[in-house]
Amino acid sequence: MLKDVKKATEKAGLSPGSLVFVGERKTERTRLRVIDYNERELWEEEAKRPEDCARFKDSATVSWIDVEGLEDIAVVEALGGAFGIHPLVLEDILHVHQRPKLEIHDNYLFLVIKVLELEDHAVIVEQVSFVLGERFLLTFQEGPTPVFDAVLARIRTDRGRIRRMRADYLAYALMDAVVDRYLVVLERLSDVMEHLEDELLERPTQATAERLHELTKQLIFMRRAIWPLRDVLNALLRDEHPLIEKSTLPFLRDVYDHTIRVVETVDTLRELLSGLFNHYHSTISNRLNETMKVLTLIATIFIPLTFIVGIYGMNFKHMPELEWHWGYYGVWAVILAVAGVMVVYFRRRQWL
Amino acid sequence: MLKDVKKATEKAGLSPGSLVFVGERKTERTRLRVIDYNERELWEEEAKRPEDCARFKDSATVSWIDVEGLEDIAVVEALGGAFGIHPLVLEDILHVHQRPKLEIHDNYLFLVIKVLELEDHAVIVEQVSFVLGERFLLTFQEGPTPVFDAVLARIRTDRGRIRRMRADYLAYALMDAVVDRYLVVLERLSDVMEHLEDELLERPTQATAERLHELTKQLIFMRRAIWPLRDVLNALLRDEHPLIEKSTLPFLRDVYDHTIRVVETVDTLRELLSGLFNHYHSTISNRLNETMKVLTLIATIFIPLTFIVGIYGMNFKHMPELEWHWGYYGVWAVILAVAGVMVVYFRRRQWL
Amino acid sequence: MLKDVKKATEKAGLSPGSLVFVGERKTERTRLRVIDYNERELWEEEAKRPEDCARFKDSATVSWIDVEGLEDIAVVEALGGAFGIHPLVLEDILHVHQRPKLEIHDNYLFLVIKVLELEDHAVIVEQVSFVLGERFLLTFQEGPTPVFDAVLARIRTDRGRIRRMRADYLAYALMDAVVDRYLVVLERLSDVMEHLEDELLERPTQATAERLHELTKQLIFMRRAIWPLRDVLNALLRDEHPLIEKSTLPFLRDVYDHTIRVVETVDTLRELLSGLFNHYHSTISNRLNETMKVLTLIATIFIPLTFIVGIYGMNFKHMPELEWHWGYYGVWAVILAVAGVMVVYFRRRQWL
Amino acid sequence: MLKDVKKATEKAGLSPGSLVFVGERKTERTRLRVIDYNERELWEEEAKRPEDCARFKDSATVSWIDVEGLEDIAVVEALGGAFGIHPLVLEDILHVHQRPKLEIHDNYLFLVIKVLELEDHAVIVEQVSFVLGERFLLTFQEGPTPVFDAVLARIRTDRGRIRRMRADYLAYALMDAVVDRYLVVLERLSDVMEHLEDELLERPTQATAERLHELTKQLIFMRRAIWPLRDVLNALLRDEHPLIEKSTLPFLRDVYDHTIRVVETVDTLRELLSGLFNHYHSTISNRLNETMKVLTLIATIFIPLTFIVGIYGMNFKHMPELEWHWGYYGVWAVILAVAGVMVVYFRRRQWL
Amino acid sequence: MLKDVKKATEKAGLSPGSLVFVGERKTERTRLRVIDYNERELWEEEAKRPEDCARFKDSATVSWIDVEGLEDIAVVEALGGAFGIHPLVLEDILHVHQRPKLEIHDNYLFLVIKVLELEDHAVIVEQVSFVLGERFLLTFQEGPTPVFDAVLARIRTDRGRIRRMRADYLAYALMDAVVDRYLVVLERLSDVMEHLEDELLERPTQATAERLHELTKQLIFMRRAIWPLRDVLNALLRDEHPLIEKSTLPFLRDVYDHTIRVVETVDTLRELLSGLFNHYHSTISNRLNETMKVLTLIATIFIPLTFIVGIYGMNFKHMPELEWHWGYYGVWAVILAVAGVMVVYFRRRQWL
Repeated sequence: MLKDVKKATEKAGLSPGSLVFVGERKTERTRLRVIDYNERELWEEEAKRPEDCARFKDSATVSWIDVEGLEDIAVVEALGGAFGIHPLVLEDILHVHQRPKLEIHDNYLFLVIKVLELEDHAVIVEQVSFVLGERFLLTFQEGPTPVFDAVLARIRTDRGRIRRMRADYLAYALMDAVVDRYLVVLERLSDVMEHLEDELLERPTQATAERLHELTKQLIFMRRAIWPLRDVLNALLRDEHPLIEKSTLPFLRDVYDHTIRVVETVDTLRELLSGLFNHYHSTISNRLNETMKVLTLIATIFIPLTFIVGIYGMNFKHMPELEWHWGYYGVWAVILAVAGVMVVYFRRRQWL
Repeated sequence: MLKDVKKATEKAGLSPGSLVFVGERKTERTRLRVIDYNERELWEEEAKRPEDCARFKDSATVSWIDVEGLEDIAVVEALGGAFGIHPLVLEDILHVHQRPKLEIHDNYLFLVIKVLELEDHAVIVEQVSFVLGERFLLTFQEGPTPVFDAVLARIRTDRGRIRRMRADYLAYALMDAVVDRYLVVLERLSDVMEHLEDELLERPTQATAERLHELTKQLIFMRRAIWPLRDVLNALLRDEHPLIEKSTLPFLRDVYDHTIRVVETVDTLRELLSGLFNHYHSTISNRLNETMKVLTLIATIFIPLTFIVGIYGMNFKHMPELEWHWGYYGVWAVILAVAGVMVVYFRRRQWL
Repeated sequence: MLKDVKKATEKAGLSPGSLVFVGERKTERTRLRVIDYNERELWEEEAKRPEDCARFKDSATVSWIDVEGLEDIAVVEALGGAFGIHPLVLEDILHVHQRPKLEIHDNYLFLVIKVLELEDHAVIVEQVSFVLGERFLLTFQEGPTPVFDAVLARIRTDRGRIRRMRADYLAYALMDAVVDRYLVVLERLSDVMEHLEDELLERPTQATAERLHELTKQLIFMRRAIWPLRDVLNALLRDEHPLIEKSTLPFLRDVYDHTIRVVETVDTLRELLSGLFNHYHSTISNRLNETMKVLTLIATIFIPLTFIVGIYGMNFKHMPELEWHWGYYGVWAVILAVAGVMVVYFRRRQWL
Repeated sequence: MLKDVKKATEKAGLSPGSLVFVGERKTERTRLRVIDYNERELWEEEAKRPEDCARFKDSATVSWIDVEGLEDIAVVEALGGAFGIHPLVLEDILHVHQRPKLEIHDNYLFLVIKVLELEDHAVIVEQVSFVLGERFLLTFQEGPTPVFDAVLARIRTDRGRIRRMRADYLAYALMDAVVDRYLVVLERLSDVMEHLEDELLERPTQATAERLHELTKQLIFMRRAIWPLRDVLNALLRDEHPLIEKSTLPFLRDVYDHTIRVVETVDTLRELLSGLFNHYHSTISNRLNETMKVLTLIATIFIPLTFIVGIYGMNFKHMPELEWHWGYYGVWAVILAVAGVMVVYFRRRQWL
Repeated sequence: MLKDVKKATEKAGLSPGSLVFVGERKTERTRLRVIDYNERELWEEEAKRPEDCARFKDSATVSWIDVEGLEDIAVVEALGGAFGIHPLVLEDILHVHQRPKLEIHDNYLFLVIKVLELEDHAVIVEQVSFVLGERFLLTFQEGPTPVFDAVLARIRTDRGRIRRMRADYLAYALMDAVVDRYLVVLERLSDVMEHLEDELLERPTQATAERLHELTKQLIFMRRAIWPLRDVLNALLRDEHPLIEKSTLPFLRDVYDHTIRVVETVDTLRELLSGLFNHYHSTISNRLNETMKVLTLIATIFIPLTFIVGIYGMNFKHMPELEWHWGYYGVWAVILAVAGVMVVYFRRRQWL
């Protein structure tokens, strides 16, 4: 259920700064992809050894080094060494159950955000870490996520703004892609909710309750992954760090707006869900009421009648009514009278 | 259900600043209406091309350019170019699922607010964007909303305050009309609630529960549309922007008061609704209780009696009671005694 | 239900500052009462025309002009003109669905507060507006409320503090009377709640639920009327406006304390009410349980017995038991055994 | 229920500063006890007249004047006069339904706190007021509360810190005693809750629900009495008033810590109580379910069987089965088959 | 239930600073362990008398004095004297029901935090106090907790960072171990919750409800123990106390991040738990509905049929139908027709 709690304990008790990968293995091997570009040129390669990347650190071009798969601790450690990253930061990169956060270091910014995917109606949360320097951006992903591909395609094909601007804009573009992904996930959950609402109006069952419960859990996890991003972006905007250029700020403000919208939408979905729960309970109560009314109607009409006919089923030697010629018809008259009174009574109570 | 989540994803993955209309098509074509006035003169025209509007940008008069229908991206783009508006602002104008917000740019203020309409008991939320310059006001509507008509009529007929004051007052007057519209929508919802309360007192059914649920959803959507406007107006009042004249401030404060009142009323309606839900559940529980009491009464009285008459319906050869002369009457005595005891018992338990 | 929402829409779409009375007509005609006093002298009159009051504006004495009934817009307008009051203020005075607020103008303070009355167990909310100048106090009431009478009596009979101090003290004295009134209303609601609690312990019915619901609504409306007053008084105390004399501040702080106490009491009552709702639902559930236990007991004991006697009511030619001499007594033995086992079973389950 | 609301209205409408005792009479007569001490000497007396106390005002020793019983307004008024206390403060002392508060006056601090007692499982709230001057401390109690006795005993027997330090330390010591008392009351409520939890696990009844409701009310009242004390002590610590010596601050911080702990414990108890309510409802629902299962089992097995034997109880002339030699045994076979199928069905549904 | 409330009252009424151990006795005797180290050397001993420790106070090495078991007040007092600790601090150390807090004294920092252990599925909360001086760290534990052992092992075996840095880093390392322990406890609770969810999907019983209730309580206690630690660490980071070296700050920030994550996880678990409760109630309601449907189906079909056969079980002399040759078959036809109609009716209502 709470994957990140589970794995967290594996590390408990180790000395701080000891590098251990804490997460599920998602890739065969760790891949290092280098995308180095400026407005005119673009260079892509898959680096064999992390040390090869060191030369991109201070190159005049924008260098994006994307690490996919974190199982190979040595790669992360070597890369960290090459770019002068604090051991605690490397620990946080490998320990993929951080909450979204921003850390301001002397020569770089360290950002942790969460990527959401939907697999078989379940929300999958993965961690992406950014290390943003003046001329480079390191990104660390748990496994291959399609979310960065659109940005990469834009770098390859489009010589527009993304190729003209610096590493901070690249970081923005990736964050923007991540936040847009949130909206896609939200749309799916919103579809599920709509479907559940229809089901509820037609014929709610135990399965409906289970799906409502499942959706509640998804939204709780989603909120947990997104909520702190608000503060991260707000801190980035408020403090005007030298690594973030002025021209990038309006774009960051845009992502911030989107994030707030996402958070509000998650909250709205939760409110709607709580309304659905209420409605589900009303419906179940109403159905119970209807069932009991049917039972009561039938039982209340027929139990007394059965008693009446029971009386004349007795075998007493001396029962004068049994001898009467109209006795049988008289009993029918009584039966119809009793049933009639019952029907009138239930009509008045608006049960019929 | 969550229209704005749905459409939002259409845009996911595009480069920022790419202009795409994200919303439902509501008009045949995009209409550009120019209303240019000062205290003595008034000029109205429907502009054919957005470029024609450029000359109004720095005219001494107040120029209101109202764009109705946002499908024609070229029109918005050209108008944006003519008035020097940032691409991200244009993107927000076309992307009609923003939350209400205020952006302060160098030469203009950008405001997004939501217009509410009621169609067949459903709250329709549409976006209206304002770009307020020193001598002009651009407004962008998704489709024709009647809410601006009263202000237009006042400009046409009344040479009073609205004709004497500047574009900021016009913006105020339009916002005021929008907020007044909220109150009209709230009144309708309040009527629905009152109706539901009567229904609940008389005879609550599953349909009542469904309408309560529907109302809950309306209020959630309404709150979402209105709530951020509070902060927008507060920011406008607090920061005393040069584009807002001192004499307009008391009027803005008035709209701010109204907005707070609207928000509080939505909250009050939600509290009342939650009270109604409580009451609905009490009523359903009470009715179930009543039903079960009737069933229990009847069953508890007649089931033992049926057992008694059943005994003397047995066909044993040797059953001395059957031979007794007063046997039958004795059984009647027993029956009446048992029934009497039951009635007394239920009286004591206050069930009769 | 939400009276103030309803009436509010009557005004929607009008030009701001247009004076229209928005409320229920409560008086035959608008009455203007002037009470002019200093420590030694007291002058009371009923002014025929609002213009007559102008001379009190700058008189050295404290002048209290009380307007009762707001239907006659001309009177309010003329008075406003005579005392130099902003049109938006006059609009707020006539529009009696404001929330409590404080507006600081150049020469006067404008205060809106709510007076509560109980009529047939329903909380009636009326608006009272104060315009406090240096030497005058204008008060505007929707209709005659008894709440100001005690203060008037004190002015008439007592040459103490109220006659020595200025208009700000008079305003304080009136607010104090209003807030004291809140406590009286709260006491009544508290009585109703106590009565409901007794009813609940003895015998809760559908009517109890309806009264609980009614009380919930009263408290929601009351909170809405009182809550903003907190901020109003706090602003008055914090900003130390020149129109409020130093010597009046401790008294205002006293009203502020009372207001906080009232608000807290409303909240406490709401918490208690929510506890009562919980208790009501427990009680209803318990009673249902009890009912069902009785039914189950009776049915579970007698239905099998009826089956047994049913067997020997069958008319098969060949049923050996029927011929047995002790057959009938044997059946009785079986019946008693089954009943005994049932009773033991229910005893163990603590149902008997 | 809400004692303090009730009595509050007695005073409504009176001129501010009019001294009226608003509370329940708890003592025969008002008692004035003077305890005057320094490190070496201790002087105790019961003052006959309040004027006698005036000489203690500026004595070099610490003078503690404890007023027990507030019915005798003249005593409070005279004492107030002798020590130069503001009439509104005297009013607050007599009006024993204040919320805890701190008022800073020129020569003294005025503090209102609440003392809690348990009488027959009910929380009794009484008001204690402190007037702390440089060399004196006046305390006003509604009636004799044992809570101050331990402090008095320490003054009498112990020449330690309490005798060496000044009036502010005495005030601290008394507040500390009051807050310690809260913990004792909380312990009792915690015992009650534990007892209720056991009852709930064994056999919840309507009485359990009533005791849960009672406990809810106690905690609401307790929270109301304690919560504002937090702010009072915080203000005292933050503002570093000259009447509070530096050496007393760590002790006040200690009381502040205790108060926060008390408030948090009340909140924890409320959360636990809400958990108990949830559990109570689950238990009741489960029991209803169990009851209904028993009923359904019995009815579902025996009602069809009774129908079957009913068939062969009919008296038709021509019923071939009745003539069959093995007819009766055949019916038994059918009966056992039906019962067997039912039992299998219920086994599968896990009802047996 | 609320252990810390219970014991707290034992001390109520004592003079402040009186040293009394308030807690459960957990050890045979109080143990004093001294670990004195610098980068090259390590000295461990078990001190016989607290006075022996005084020489470590100003030694150049880092001295960690760990007190295990607080029953021997004399030891704590003597140690406090030797290191110059304020009596109120000693009182707080012995009174083990403090909430986590930070106190800044002249020469040392005083920190209280809570250690969590799981014993038989119950969360055990114990208090650990830190007194951090420039060259020493005193720790006070209620009893032996394994949580410090890993740190001790690191000091013994590893000549790394922990041996190079000062007492503040040691304090950090111990706090880090405590917070890591929280995650282990959370993992266990998360497992319990997962198990409960499975149980709920398969077959919820009263025992499930009891375990849900138990888990609720655990989380309430856990939150209470952890929540204030947030503020403690935040204060430590914000104020940059001279006793905390710059190089330790990033590590403290790391513990702070972990603490926030723990608090958020507790909150997430509580939200999930509340979702489970909702789901539990839905499930119980659904099962009741199912039960009632079975009962209603059977009763509604067979009760009328039993009535019909009852009619022809009457013994009237004159009942024409009984004489009819096809009478018996006619009754069967009626029976089948009635049953058929019922079945169709229930099919339509989707009960079959």
